[in-house]
Amino acid sequence: MKRQFLTYLLSASMLAGYAQNKNTNPMIEKQVDQLVSKMTLEEKVGQMTQISVEALLKTTNGVVNEPHIIDPEKLATCIKKYKVGSILNIGGDAQTRENWQQLIRAIQKMALEERLKIPVLYGIDAIRGNNYTLNTVLFPQQIAQAASFNTSMIKKVSEISAYETRASFIPWTFSPVLDLGRQPVWPRIWETFGEDPFLAAELGKATVEGFQGDNQVTDKYHVAACLKHYMGYSMPLSGHDRTPAWIPERELREYFLPQFATAVKNGAKTVMVNSGEINGVPVHANKHILTEILKGELQFSGFAVSDWQDIQYLYQRHHVAKDNKEAVMIAINAGIDMSMVPTDYTFCEDLIALAKEGKVPMSRIDDAVKRILKVKYEVDLFNNPTGNAADYPEVNSLAHNKVNYDAASECITLLKNTNGILPLAVGKKILVCGPAANSMRVLNGGWSRNWQGTNSNETEKDKNTILEAIQKTFGAANVDYSEGATFTEATTISESVAKAEKSDVIVLCIGENSYTETPGNIGDLNISAPQIELAKALAATGKPIVFVLTEGRPRVISAIEPLSAAVLHTYLLGNEGGNVVADVLAGKINPSGKLPYTYPRTANSLHNYYHKHTETLKFDEWAGFNPQWEFGYGLSYTSFAYSNLKLSTDQLADNSKITVTVDVANTGKIAGKEAALLFVSDKVASITPEVKRLRAFDKVELQPGQSKTITFTIDKEQLSFINNDLKRVTEPGDFSLSIGGLTADFKYVSAIN
Amino acid sequence: MKRQFLTYLLSASMLAGYAQNKNTNPMIEKQVDQLVSKMTLEEKVGQMTQISVEALLKTTNGVVNEPHIIDPEKLATCIKKYKVGSILNIGGDAQTRENWQQLIRAIQKMALEERLKIPVLYGIDAIRGNNYTLNTVLFPQQIAQAASFNTSMIKKVSEISAYETRASFIPWTFSPVLDLGRQPVWPRIWETFGEDPFLAAELGKATVEGFQGDNQVTDKYHVAACLKHYMGYSMPLSGHDRTPAWIPERELREYFLPQFATAVKNGAKTVMVNSGEINGVPVHANKHILTEILKGELQFSGFAVSDWQDIQYLYQRHHVAKDNKEAVMIAINAGIDMSMVPTDYTFCEDLIALAKEGKVPMSRIDDAVKRILKVKYEVDLFNNPTGNAADYPEVNSLAHNKVNYDAASECITLLKNTNGILPLAVGKKILVCGPAANSMRVLNGGWSRNWQGTNSNETEKDKNTILEAIQKTFGAANVDYSEGATFTEATTISESVAKAEKSDVIVLCIGENSYTETPGNIGDLNISAPQIELAKALAATGKPIVFVLTEGRPRVISAIEPLSAAVLHTYLLGNEGGNVVADVLAGKINPSGKLPYTYPRTANSLHNYYHKHTETLKFDEWAGFNPQWEFGYGLSYTSFAYSNLKLSTDQLADNSKITVTVDVANTGKIAGKEAALLFVSDKVASITPEVKRLRAFDKVELQPGQSKTITFTIDKEQLSFINNDLKRVTEPGDFSLSIGGLTADFKYVSAIN
Repeated sequence: MKRQFLTYLLSASMLAGYAQNKNTNPMIEKQVDQLVSKMTLEEKVGQMTQISVEALLKTTNGVVNEPHIIDPEKLATCIKKYKVGSILNIGGDAQTRENWQQLIRAIQKMALEERLKIPVLYGIDAIRGNNYTLNTVLFPQQIAQAASFNTSMIKKVSEISAYETRASFIPWTFSPVLDLGRQPVWPRIWETFGEDPFLAAELGKATVEGFQGDNQVTDKYHVAACLKHYMGYSMPLSGHDRTPAWIPERELREYFLPQFATAVKNGAKTVMVNSGEINGVPVHANKHILTEILKGELQFSGFAVSDWQDIQYLYQRHHVAKDNKEAVMIAINAGIDMSMVPTDYTFCEDLIALAKEGKVPMSRIDDAVKRILKVKYEVDLFNNPTGNAADYPEVNSLAHNKVNYDAASECITLLKNTNGILPLAVGKKILVCGPAANSMRVLNGGWSRNWQGTNSNETEKDKNTILEAIQKTFGAANVDYSEGATFTEATTISESVAKAEKSDVIVLCIGENSYTETPGNIGDLNISAPQIELAKALAATGKPIVFVLTEGRPRVISAIEPLSAAVLHTYLLGNEGGNVVADVLAGKINPSGKLPYTYPRTANSLHNYYHKHTETLKFDEWAGFNPQWEFGYGLSYTSFAYSNLKLSTDQLADNSKITVTVDVANTGKIAGKEAALLFVSDKVASITPEVKRLRAFDKVELQPGQSKTITFTIDKEQLSFINNDLKRVTEPGDFSLSIGGLTADFKYVSAIN
Repeated sequence: MKRQFLTYLLSASMLAGYAQNKNTNPMIEKQVDQLVSKMTLEEKVGQMTQISVEALLKTTNGVVNEPHIIDPEKLATCIKKYKVGSILNIGGDAQTRENWQQLIRAIQKMALEERLKIPVLYGIDAIRGNNYTLNTVLFPQQIAQAASFNTSMIKKVSEISAYETRASFIPWTFSPVLDLGRQPVWPRIWETFGEDPFLAAELGKATVEGFQGDNQVTDKYHVAACLKHYMGYSMPLSGHDRTPAWIPERELREYFLPQFATAVKNGAKTVMVNSGEINGVPVHANKHILTEILKGELQFSGFAVSDWQDIQYLYQRHHVAKDNKEAVMIAINAGIDMSMVPTDYTFCEDLIALAKEGKVPMSRIDDAVKRILKVKYEVDLFNNPTGNAADYPEVNSLAHNKVNYDAASECITLLKNTNGILPLAVGKKILVCGPAANSMRVLNGGWSRNWQGTNSNETEKDKNTILEAIQKTFGAANVDYSEGATFTEATTISESVAKAEKSDVIVLCIGENSYTETPGNIGDLNISAPQIELAKALAATGKPIVFVLTEGRPRVISAIEPLSAAVLHTYLLGNEGGNVVADVLAGKINPSGKLPYTYPRTANSLHNYYHKHTETLKFDEWAGFNPQWEFGYGLSYTSFAYSNLKLSTDQLADNSKITVTVDVANTGKIAGKEAALLFVSDKVASITPEVKRLRAFDKVELQPGQSKTITFTIDKEQLSFINNDLKRVTEPGDFSLSIGGLTADFKYVSAIN
């Protein structure tokens, strides 16, 4: 009886999508308790403080010295005076690994001289590679990774990222982004896993596993993950970064929470909080989201760090506090555990005063400090505050770069290939054009050796741009080049046209330059006018054009898409992007990526694939759901045929599952990979059902003529949604599922309902 | 003591913005109760049913006969078999007044032959004039009316609309639209009073007063108003009509509810319900919004009618019901009182069955029927089911048309006037160009003699287009014309350029053709490419260009705005629009309109004037709040100076007011009107405060050299907002107000808080 009851509880918990976080270790809990019991208020507040390293570096005439050198006096103020427990990031450009090691050693040396010998937890934005250390692997950005639909590949990428980050003696990365990328105007959509909550949850889980390893306590090859930006950051009403979002709680729970819940359940150690406001309340001031949902419902046992300056911004930008002290009170009482201050000690001073005045309870401070110290134990900082430089021989190794190439090969997405123009026939004269053709900056995007990714052309000059790779692959004699236009102005269009007349095919590389966050805001999603002008001028020659899209977000290209013979979408492929584009053009890589978002056709007609039926009505060409390309769309050089879709039953009961099998065959002439996506449609529900939702996916590799049977299971949980009472429910009734164009109907019949 | 307590209650009620609706009459209540007590279930359900007249007309080969003739057999099915209580609208094009009178007489004759002699309530979309009756006044559309900032003018317009509607024996108009026009992509923004809730509430109140008159019971010159589309209809996420909206309840109450609350408090007799879904729940299925808020909190005592087919759409489009019967159950139980079915009797049959099965309680049906019958008594239908044709000699009279001209004169908005190019000097050679130049359809927009306003060029051919009016005003010899482009393609651009070379000034009329609802959806807010091409070609001649914008929504013109010397915004000015444009160009009218919305600069940078401080950060030219023109912007041919801003106190207490005075002087050389707008900024609040909010406005007329003192009062209520607990509160603290560029600070100090 009792066992049955427990099973039921577990099942109810699974139903809610939130199982208990098993990331607890009694030994660590005991150590934490003992340590906290010895701490003064000032020491506790110091642990809750995070300072940017730029405030601690030596400067000359106000400019940070290169390479970076810790200023011992500034460090002493930080560590000795304010007992600061965490430092982050980098004041400007990437440093060498040796410099990082030296910097971390200096910090930890001073920290360990303090009374309680608590090491500093250093955190960094090492997203898709340790991008703030020179000569490390720069993998495809998250949006490109998502196009692979390959969880094991993504886990491997994250393992290497963790290894290369720890090699700089840094045990904590501000990654992955689990924000939902469903607003294409937003300048950070490329940092997400795309528009689907299930896809983001699965890939987020793989990333956390790669970062943190299989053990609950991180070893010297792994780092603590930081889920960001909890939660609802990615859909500002205006599309502009850090502007207000309107997300009703039902939608917050339906679309934005699940991927965080999955990652928390899988042991993610930290979260970073959304800088924005939702429904008029800055999330840094939202106790419901930070404490009730995250620490209550999700049973998150790690800590929540603010984003950059966001407690100060509560009064400076959001105007919900009259001064810094009130801002600190609101944020800490709401559930922020650590303040990314980032460059002064006002947080320490104000929090100490608030604690003494009883305006922030000591219980709240103790809770925050325990959470932080727990993570410090878990990443083994007390035993290993720095590291052993010799432990990391594989940094930027051939093997790691091979993984990068393989990963990028699975991300690149073929969107159009009229008359099989790709791969290009041998001996063709190729003209390469466009502002993205000869730029490592464009391939890598933001967060590449510096915040805005502005100097990749210098730092990554040993890597191949698209142009360089095409020249190497096809032979320089067969390749000509003319920029034609930058992203902002026409430059050599007449030269490009003249060269096009002499070529057989044009490879036109267009998109966006690097950016992230607020500087990446745009006023118009249409691709820039000079690129349109260039494309039109080239098309007038009659020569076939292959578009290579190199862009962080899906810029609208409907004005010129009809002028293309083929379209390759590269997102931000990273350092191997040039090679991969060339090898796809040459047929050495068979592309297998699929769009992780809906590619819009027009700038003011932005719908997701999981839109509602009311969005499909068509009165004219622009009305209704009519994107340029749909979520999950992607071509191959071979062809795949789906057949034999079978369901083990068409009646799903409460505790049963449906086993779904389908055969996928490679019916073409070359090997290829195919991601099979299983969508489910709920026919009638109390909340207007989406036209379809992704509920499972799997990627298989098939030789020509080969066929494989893919098996999925469907249970009640996969059919669930958040109802108007904010409960996760599965309502009995009719459903249909589709895979690769095949469909089948089934019913969910419940004994409970 | 008791009196004090009542005062406090009233004050609390005022604070909530919802005072008791005084629209009750004991005599009518008694009549209603007696009538309902005699009714069968079938008769009650019939009263709740509304059928479109197109289902009742004679047809030939499936096409409705012109002029319309009631088919007695179809009418008998409607009236005798199904006891239908309401009929609406028109099957196609406008009819003559005589035909309307005949049609209404036929309907009422049959209705009054029935057992209980209950007349039919006929309702029609008579927005800004009785647009479905030929030869009636077509006033400026609501968005243009809003630009006047003139409540007394708007009341007068509505009085005339009511008179001309009742002249067709129709006692009920589906107007005003109180949806908030803050999403410029939405194809019905021109049917709203613009982006500000306070402005919409004040103008909505004036409209209801104009429609319904000063008496609670409507006389033969007034009609019952219908507030639509209750509520939250106007901000679909995608911008496309009738697609899902995400509006958290706090924002719903802050921005979308107040104007409905004000109109209900002022006796509006009916509301029409939002066709869309909010947060996953179709509003036609939302008991919280329809019953708890509208009939509970707002104490609305009239009835709620569905929008077109919207109960059927609960299963056909929204998929929240499995069939029509379930849809009827959900909608009626949620609080819909009358179903705009519109062309069959399934509603009657299903509701009767549901009542018999107990799935819709009789109490709910009785409540709905009583609400409907109450309105029928209030519009005096039982005494005056048709009308006396001779009672309406003023329909389309010179006097009515003069009011139309005066109204349109106050709406037209001058947005740019470089070097005072306007008014145009006498004797200039004028070239008129553009697709909007010679079209009554463009001036009138949708809902003009038919749904999409497609035949105004025929029906309004006795009115002047912009071209015709300019020819009459400036003399045909001084005016040349070349279309240049339609809205969708370049036509005679080279001819236009050639004629421009021979002219002194170009009047370029651009914008949009007529539309409404879903057919008006667009993919891109940028003005159409052929119009941009035409403007650029004309600008290349070096001749000054006056843009005349004739458009339902603010199409982005930043690509060509710098090419203009002056910009006149006409919105949809109605039948006098041509004359008014010509007279503004000639200086006979001094423009005084001000923008009722923010005119966006780019298609994906859509912010309202009452944006948050986080939206004002600027990193590059497109980031942050940077519209083409701001809400409230509008120029004059004279100049106004504000001075002497005074507050009676800078400390507002709970039960006090601040009297604000400011002097406005006409410092120019001609008479003019000026709308003074008072904005208030809350410095710090628990919900991130908007940068500013409109809290009062007044319009004054000033002769050259004349000065007037304008007086406003500010009380606690005007500083209030909806907090995170969904309560309307005013938080003590610092505020500032601004009028005409002058600012003053004050505090709200509360004894309560």
